[in-house]
Amino acid sequence: MAASFNVVRYDYSPCAACKLLRRKCLPDCIFAPYFPPEELQKFISVPKIFGASNVAKLLNEVLPHQREDTVSSLSYEAEARLRDPVYGCVGTISILQLQVERLQKELDEANAELVSYA
Amino acid sequence: MAASFNVVRYDYSPCAACKLLRRKCLPDCIFAPYFPPEELQKFISVPKIFGASNVAKLLNEVLPHQREDTVSSLSYEAEARLRDPVYGCVGTISILQLQVERLQKELDEANAELVSYA
Repeated sequence: MAASFNVVRYDYSPCAACKLLRRKCLPDCIFAPYFPPEELQKFISVPKIFGASNVAKLLNEVLPHQREDTVSSLSYEAEARLRDPVYGCVGTISILQLQVERLQKELDEANAELVSYA
Repeated sequence: MAASFNVVRYDYSPCAACKLLRRKCLPDCIFAPYFPPEELQKFISVPKIFGASNVAKLLNEVLPHQREDTVSSLSYEAEARLRDPVYGCVGTISILQLQVERLQKELDEANAELVSYA
């Protein structure tokens, strides 16, 4: 039954990537499974930061089952770079590293105090 | 006195970016101050991931005093993506977030125990 819904969507509408790159969306388009036509916004930031050809190259280099995660992490990185052109998501890493350092220090202090009660 | 050392280096040797991109390194080259000729390796990963034109565009969009940090964060991101093509430095963010969560939980527990002693 479900098979009847498995129409090749790309016959009707190009994926978000091909739409934005103004090119024909072929059935084997590397972008199509991860950038459906209704999610145009999802593709806007990624090529702006990485370049469409670099993204295609990256997707071709990873295994098919890893492509969804690759696209998600690229989107996250691109959005972070658009929000903060100087530090991008490296800024988030710095903040988290400081937070880990502070929490570890507080935990060490609390544990030292607990030992004194024991 | 110092002025005598201010020879325009680019007359002699193109910066690492122009050397790798095989183009003439002009005195106003946007890459030259951040990718000196002796640091060829520093430029290799960045255009591989972001594309040279995207990097130039990004550097032009930030203030001159922010360009050094921009180059550092782009290098960090590019290196992370080359090491881990699926998650890049977003993988580091996930690990750090889990670490923060775990430390916060342990600290809450330690503090709760301390309160019981108080």
